[in-house]
Amino acid sequence: MNTRSEYDLLGTLDVPADAFYGIQTLRAANNFSITGVAISHFPELIKAMAMVKAAAAHTNFEYKLLEEHQTNAILSACQELIDGHYHNQFIVDVIQGGAGTSTNMNANEVIANIALTKMGYQKGDYKKLHPNDHVNRSQSTNDAYPTAASLSIQFAADAFVPVLSSLKASLEEKGREFASVLKMGRTQLQDAVPMTLGQEFDAFAVNLGEDIDRIQEACTLLCEVNLGGTAIGTGINTPAGYAKKAVDHLAKISGKPVVPATNLVEATSDMGAFVFFSGILKRLATKLSKMSNDLRLLSSGPRTGFGEIKLPEMQPGSSIMPGKVNPVIPEAMNQTAYQVIASDLAVTLAAEAGQLQLNAMEPMIIYNLLNSIKMLKEACHMMEHRCIRGIEANVDACAAHVENSIGIITALVPHIGYANSSRIARNALMSGATIKALILEEKLLTEAQLNELLKPENMISPTPSAQTSSQTSSYPSPSSISPSPTTEGV
Amino acid sequence: MNTRSEYDLLGTLDVPADAFYGIQTLRAANNFSITGVAISHFPELIKAMAMVKAAAAHTNFEYKLLEEHQTNAILSACQELIDGHYHNQFIVDVIQGGAGTSTNMNANEVIANIALTKMGYQKGDYKKLHPNDHVNRSQSTNDAYPTAASLSIQFAADAFVPVLSSLKASLEEKGREFASVLKMGRTQLQDAVPMTLGQEFDAFAVNLGEDIDRIQEACTLLCEVNLGGTAIGTGINTPAGYAKKAVDHLAKISGKPVVPATNLVEATSDMGAFVFFSGILKRLATKLSKMSNDLRLLSSGPRTGFGEIKLPEMQPGSSIMPGKVNPVIPEAMNQTAYQVIASDLAVTLAAEAGQLQLNAMEPMIIYNLLNSIKMLKEACHMMEHRCIRGIEANVDACAAHVENSIGIITALVPHIGYANSSRIARNALMSGATIKALILEEKLLTEAQLNELLKPENMISPTPSAQTSSQTSSYPSPSSISPSPTTEGV
Amino acid sequence: MNTRSEYDLLGTLDVPADAFYGIQTLRAANNFSITGVAISHFPELIKAMAMVKAAAAHTNFEYKLLEEHQTNAILSACQELIDGHYHNQFIVDVIQGGAGTSTNMNANEVIANIALTKMGYQKGDYKKLHPNDHVNRSQSTNDAYPTAASLSIQFAADAFVPVLSSLKASLEEKGREFASVLKMGRTQLQDAVPMTLGQEFDAFAVNLGEDIDRIQEACTLLCEVNLGGTAIGTGINTPAGYAKKAVDHLAKISGKPVVPATNLVEATSDMGAFVFFSGILKRLATKLSKMSNDLRLLSSGPRTGFGEIKLPEMQPGSSIMPGKVNPVIPEAMNQTAYQVIASDLAVTLAAEAGQLQLNAMEPMIIYNLLNSIKMLKEACHMMEHRCIRGIEANVDACAAHVENSIGIITALVPHIGYANSSRIARNALMSGATIKALILEEKLLTEAQLNELLKPENMISPTPSAQTSSQTSSYPSPSSISPSPTTEGV
Amino acid sequence: MNTRSEYDLLGTLDVPADAFYGIQTLRAANNFSITGVAISHFPELIKAMAMVKAAAAHTNFEYKLLEEHQTNAILSACQELIDGHYHNQFIVDVIQGGAGTSTNMNANEVIANIALTKMGYQKGDYKKLHPNDHVNRSQSTNDAYPTAASLSIQFAADAFVPVLSSLKASLEEKGREFASVLKMGRTQLQDAVPMTLGQEFDAFAVNLGEDIDRIQEACTLLCEVNLGGTAIGTGINTPAGYAKKAVDHLAKISGKPVVPATNLVEATSDMGAFVFFSGILKRLATKLSKMSNDLRLLSSGPRTGFGEIKLPEMQPGSSIMPGKVNPVIPEAMNQTAYQVIASDLAVTLAAEAGQLQLNAMEPMIIYNLLNSIKMLKEACHMMEHRCIRGIEANVDACAAHVENSIGIITALVPHIGYANSSRIARNALMSGATIKALILEEKLLTEAQLNELLKPENMISPTPSAQTSSQTSSYPSPSSISPSPTTEGV
Repeated sequence: MNTRSEYDLLGTLDVPADAFYGIQTLRAANNFSITGVAISHFPELIKAMAMVKAAAAHTNFEYKLLEEHQTNAILSACQELIDGHYHNQFIVDVIQGGAGTSTNMNANEVIANIALTKMGYQKGDYKKLHPNDHVNRSQSTNDAYPTAASLSIQFAADAFVPVLSSLKASLEEKGREFASVLKMGRTQLQDAVPMTLGQEFDAFAVNLGEDIDRIQEACTLLCEVNLGGTAIGTGINTPAGYAKKAVDHLAKISGKPVVPATNLVEATSDMGAFVFFSGILKRLATKLSKMSNDLRLLSSGPRTGFGEIKLPEMQPGSSIMPGKVNPVIPEAMNQTAYQVIASDLAVTLAAEAGQLQLNAMEPMIIYNLLNSIKMLKEACHMMEHRCIRGIEANVDACAAHVENSIGIITALVPHIGYANSSRIARNALMSGATIKALILEEKLLTEAQLNELLKPENMISPTPSAQTSSQTSSYPSPSSISPSPTTEGV
Repeated sequence: MNTRSEYDLLGTLDVPADAFYGIQTLRAANNFSITGVAISHFPELIKAMAMVKAAAAHTNFEYKLLEEHQTNAILSACQELIDGHYHNQFIVDVIQGGAGTSTNMNANEVIANIALTKMGYQKGDYKKLHPNDHVNRSQSTNDAYPTAASLSIQFAADAFVPVLSSLKASLEEKGREFASVLKMGRTQLQDAVPMTLGQEFDAFAVNLGEDIDRIQEACTLLCEVNLGGTAIGTGINTPAGYAKKAVDHLAKISGKPVVPATNLVEATSDMGAFVFFSGILKRLATKLSKMSNDLRLLSSGPRTGFGEIKLPEMQPGSSIMPGKVNPVIPEAMNQTAYQVIASDLAVTLAAEAGQLQLNAMEPMIIYNLLNSIKMLKEACHMMEHRCIRGIEANVDACAAHVENSIGIITALVPHIGYANSSRIARNALMSGATIKALILEEKLLTEAQLNELLKPENMISPTPSAQTSSQTSSYPSPSSISPSPTTEGV
Repeated sequence: MNTRSEYDLLGTLDVPADAFYGIQTLRAANNFSITGVAISHFPELIKAMAMVKAAAAHTNFEYKLLEEHQTNAILSACQELIDGHYHNQFIVDVIQGGAGTSTNMNANEVIANIALTKMGYQKGDYKKLHPNDHVNRSQSTNDAYPTAASLSIQFAADAFVPVLSSLKASLEEKGREFASVLKMGRTQLQDAVPMTLGQEFDAFAVNLGEDIDRIQEACTLLCEVNLGGTAIGTGINTPAGYAKKAVDHLAKISGKPVVPATNLVEATSDMGAFVFFSGILKRLATKLSKMSNDLRLLSSGPRTGFGEIKLPEMQPGSSIMPGKVNPVIPEAMNQTAYQVIASDLAVTLAAEAGQLQLNAMEPMIIYNLLNSIKMLKEACHMMEHRCIRGIEANVDACAAHVENSIGIITALVPHIGYANSSRIARNALMSGATIKALILEEKLLTEAQLNELLKPENMISPTPSAQTSSQTSSYPSPSSISPSPTTEGV
Repeated sequence: MNTRSEYDLLGTLDVPADAFYGIQTLRAANNFSITGVAISHFPELIKAMAMVKAAAAHTNFEYKLLEEHQTNAILSACQELIDGHYHNQFIVDVIQGGAGTSTNMNANEVIANIALTKMGYQKGDYKKLHPNDHVNRSQSTNDAYPTAASLSIQFAADAFVPVLSSLKASLEEKGREFASVLKMGRTQLQDAVPMTLGQEFDAFAVNLGEDIDRIQEACTLLCEVNLGGTAIGTGINTPAGYAKKAVDHLAKISGKPVVPATNLVEATSDMGAFVFFSGILKRLATKLSKMSNDLRLLSSGPRTGFGEIKLPEMQPGSSIMPGKVNPVIPEAMNQTAYQVIASDLAVTLAAEAGQLQLNAMEPMIIYNLLNSIKMLKEACHMMEHRCIRGIEANVDACAAHVENSIGIITALVPHIGYANSSRIARNALMSGATIKALILEEKLLTEAQLNELLKPENMISPTPSAQTSSQTSSYPSPSSISPSPTTEGV
């Protein structure tokens, strides 16, 4: 293998001649091979690193800390990375010691060597353009890396949110489709009171919609960056005013409204925004898992379960049981959710382990966040296209459940009292009789009253936003049926 | 023991004659004794339950669903609970099956019996005023309980935030006190570059301040309540418009800007706001733990550690080693933080376990949240009054660390280059010589240049907010010292 | 309040005159009030501390490090604690800084003052008998406390295991009771193949039985104690041979086969055995939660769920829905399980936070373990007596599920092939026809063959331990029905 | 692309002509792309699947359920996989719905097509040899997959344990190397009493050694397999005695002492052994993290930290601070540990989510376990070769710490009492004087007595195993120095 010799603080090493990375990248790649996942698996991070380097180059040039041709070469190299080129040069493992120094140096070295090539020099000819003195000028890993990380998470979120919104839209669509499918609601897995299947899917949609808002708020928190703080937030080796200018450039380059953190010392060691973001992903995961559990419950059967909905069939479900089809898509979502919940713990553990002016565990925090967003994006896309969109209602089964249910007696409580109702519910359960029959038998209500009270629209109230005064009239006023609640007995 | 007989769906039971709770409370108390912690340990929850009952009573009266004397008796009973009386009647364990029904019935029964007493009736004379038909009128556990829980967490937060703010203020005070104590910053436990001890304490303060904001935002999310949704959010057994009116009453009674959730079906099963709140507490816990770790590191010694600060001595530290005093307060804070992080997992697990129209695990979610807030409040108060306020700086040790440090060479990199600096740093480490001596020996800079560059104010930049243009002049422009970065070698 | 003055390293303090605890306990009680739970809530820990102190006293006497009358007084005081007296003197919070020093000093002081009283002296007259010099002689918190903790967990386990065994026995009893109740097994909530309800309960029993074994193994690991290691495991301030003799005494006093750890330095900082024990409890919690989930699923209904079993009714289930009864006991078990899983995380976090020669977070590790065992004991007792024992089978529903099921076709696969079976299963699902009818229609098997193959005993094989050679004959040899698997098509 | 058409329950699909996998694998690959990690990343799992298929083939042949030429072709295909060939045909994502069915079918299809090729048939010509009817004969995913998983974890452990043992051996070697380096022990980061650096490394070694034992015990639990239980453990579609014979074959093929589980119904849904194994890995992770934390503390500096050891320099530590070298290897180990602790949570969540007769989340349980073992193996190898072996002691710094320490006064407590010692320790701390000087000044001991008591060998006792009776004489009997503990004052 052709090599070139490079050296650093610890001596010399042979770097592959065609590599754009350099000696420090190579040392790190040799040191760390724990996950087998290289930084290049997260192109958002590389792009964000390049944007930070470009912002720094612009600013350094303004302070005359870089010459024009150096600046241009660096900017051009950064653009290559932003355009998605040379990502295979980012070979360091995502879990690495050094608080991100290896990732930062990987970027510094690759940019320096691309720039050198563009300037007509040999790779490794760092006298012309040096990874530390020029590309990393006025920066430290400790500000460049978390700033890039914050951006990369926002980029990942930008790709994820439309997928989540689309899933939400499909749930809403099902909400409309199933708006008139009457079914029994269940609390604690026991028959409760009637609702529509549409309401159930609407609730899923609303539930996920809240997390879209939370993700976007969390992105706002990530817009406070510590670029300009350098080593520990004191801004050593930056000219006065550098932080503000560098972050302004970064805002322009990235299109994100980044601003300098109010206190750069605090911002340099603080993992708070990452922990917050991770907490939001964890929350979303619990919701997606709960929804998956519900879908699996509602589609349980085909003959011995709830059987209220039918999921689209995606693959044969058994190597031994013919005809069996399983809810594999929700199951995969559950597993994704558990992985994301676990990743949140990893992030928490790493955040708590920060010491003094820096958190050395940043690389795995960033890895877990980017990985969680990626997995959730894939899983939500899968959920929408391979499950939600194809769900069908089993209208007859839903209707039969309501018919047989004891829970409808709840609608009569305001009129016959809780104690009466309890007694009749119990009789129904024991005897197998219907609620209606028992009520009439005891002459607690007339058939007309019963029919009125058990109309679906009277059992399923509108949501508050729809509760206009005009609807008041449709509610059977208590006096029209029974003058006051009957609270005998007890 | 004197008893009175009460009965419910499952039969009769003897209730102690002087008990204000009734048969359903007694059943629950018999069923559950897992933690040994009764609901009464969280007075905020009882008060919030009473406010919900009062709001419902007002609204029911407006709909003519309660008579005036009933309404007044209920309101008066609720006020007793709000005033902190009768809390010992809340005997059910905090971990209970039934999604909070036992807590709700405990409230219904206690309120009914207080009200009956006030009306001049016997306890248990439910024909006059019934726990279900009157106190619980137009409500279900499934809306009354989570609504009360949301309020109770806000009340707990109201008590906690001032404690946290006060801790923050004490940290800021220390920040000012130590503003001129120069010390070495450390990254990855290795000497980095200089900073002040004041900056370190300022960073702690800023760090915690962010969480005060987050807690208040989280309280806002808790203001969306599902009161009026009754059993499953469809509002069965409520008159049209009830939800809006009941929540308006609740806002007045509680002083909290509660509003009805947009989608009551979703709101009834959704634990999202609780998970969010728990995530914020977890984040705060990781920060408090990190700060405690730092304080223990900085005060390590007295003779074989960092020894930069001295914590107040709170108790002898050893049963065998005389004179030993340990950082017991930060240690207790660490443990509290771990407990809170663990509670967040409990909340997550319980949230994920929700099924269909309700989450049956709500009681332990509420318990863990209230308990975490309580523990954090106690621990933050302890931290401020038994630790932070009494911390003293070891100024001499801090200064000596800077003097001996190799890290100060970082300030010279813009002037002598990274490669030169690395070489000299290495020589210093090997030989034990000082950086200054080696620089002068190699004639890389003059003594005057060196002194200028190593002035503390040049090594510790102001934070961006303080970086006004007037300060620009104090920064030694690169050109005044070395025309361009020397990037020889490499 | 009457007081006596005591003093320590940090000065003097007024201790209530009637208190058996002393100044160091008082300082700790003032310092820590985070949970509000005092050590006295865990009598096992106090008894174990007393046993350690007694073992040390015996050994010190043998080394002439205590005089006879001192030794006797200490032993007599320890016996009081072992007998359950004076536990209210243990007032320090379970979460405390100081690695257990406060608990150890609480024990030292209480024992000293009981002993002084027995010797006819005043409380606080430590010249006669000193908490540190005599009661704590040859000990440090760092060996005495974890040794006592290891014992206390074993004592707690001793109380828990019979409860767990009894729960297991009740599950086995149900296994026998339901041995002939044929039902459909379900995988992934989809109908699978037939089994008996008895097999389902047997499986629960076997599942829990394994954890009884694991708990007992974990207790064995706790028998390696570090008593005699004193401050950091080097045994400073102990005579040679002390560790062995002290632990021998402890074995006699406690009735537990404790032995000295092989490496006392390692043993002093190692939390491994506690983490292991906690992991076992967590595993048991996941199993109990899974069983609770199953019980709630199987009893779902009464009319719109699986309805295969009926749980005993423990309390009315709803404040609004009459007649509703919920599975509150399994729900409470689920919540307990989540709390235990969370506690395992607390233990893990605290274990990881140990530094150098000691783990300062031991108090919360011990607290979480003792609390988890206590909660599990209560919950398992509740589960057995308020749920399992009263479960009834809904035999008719179970039978109907098998009858209607498509899953029984699996039993025909060896005879008609997987592809044929898949096609027929599909037809059955689409048309609503039964498997039997379709098979006969296609003449794939004769009615006699079908009846033979679908006999329950042929669908539900015995477990391997019961599979003796004599049973081979009962299995319909493939050749008697169809000469070779038909694998047409595909 | 050349394709062949295959069909299954859900219809036909074009499979790449050169693929050895078939239609069901393709469906699964299309359905799941969440992690981007294919099964082929875990060759142990593929090998174990092949062994299970081979064991089944042998057994089926014995029962005449497969013909000889079919059996031979299957066995030959399995051997290819065991030899590491065709692994790139395992394309399904590690996170997949379906409880492992897709992995099992991937194996069935690949084996069938390799076998068909070997028999001279076309791929896809399943009339000759069918993935379900022949390769999967007498099996279900639900027994074949977890059986293979249990084996694969043992194979992974087989590769890991020697790495861990080697790390342990290197720690022991350092223990010997540093056996005479006297240093101060620290508890709670405060100076405690003297020890040797060798004892510190010995403790690390012993600590890890215990986990080697635990891993091997955990492997034993994995030897109970459910092969033969088929769909739900009832053994449907297996001849009597099949389970025993199949597992015997598997033992021979795998070299592992696998046995059939006592209760196959229980074993089919139980994840207990996986949760147990995961708990052991988590425990090991906490220990490795604690050791890494210690190494980073002990090497903190170079000039402002503990500075007792020097880690080998693996890479430059900063992009801005020249000469800085960071403890990157322990940092990477910390991060690995956090990832493993998080994976344990993922396993726990998935285990708890099992329902009724099967756990649908098995694939992610297996993935997390295999991934954790793999990461720990890499990290332990890194730790040994890139850190432990190159650690050097800073003997002078260690000695100076002891000299200056106040903690040595502990050794005098048995002779001058705890109260005296506390007072002198305090004076030393306040005045800066040495303990020795103050003791002599107060004439509490003679210089000869002091020198005797402070001999290193008297401060660092031997461990119990080395404590033979002959050593008793070397311990200065208390009476020879001071007749009884002086417990004045207090």
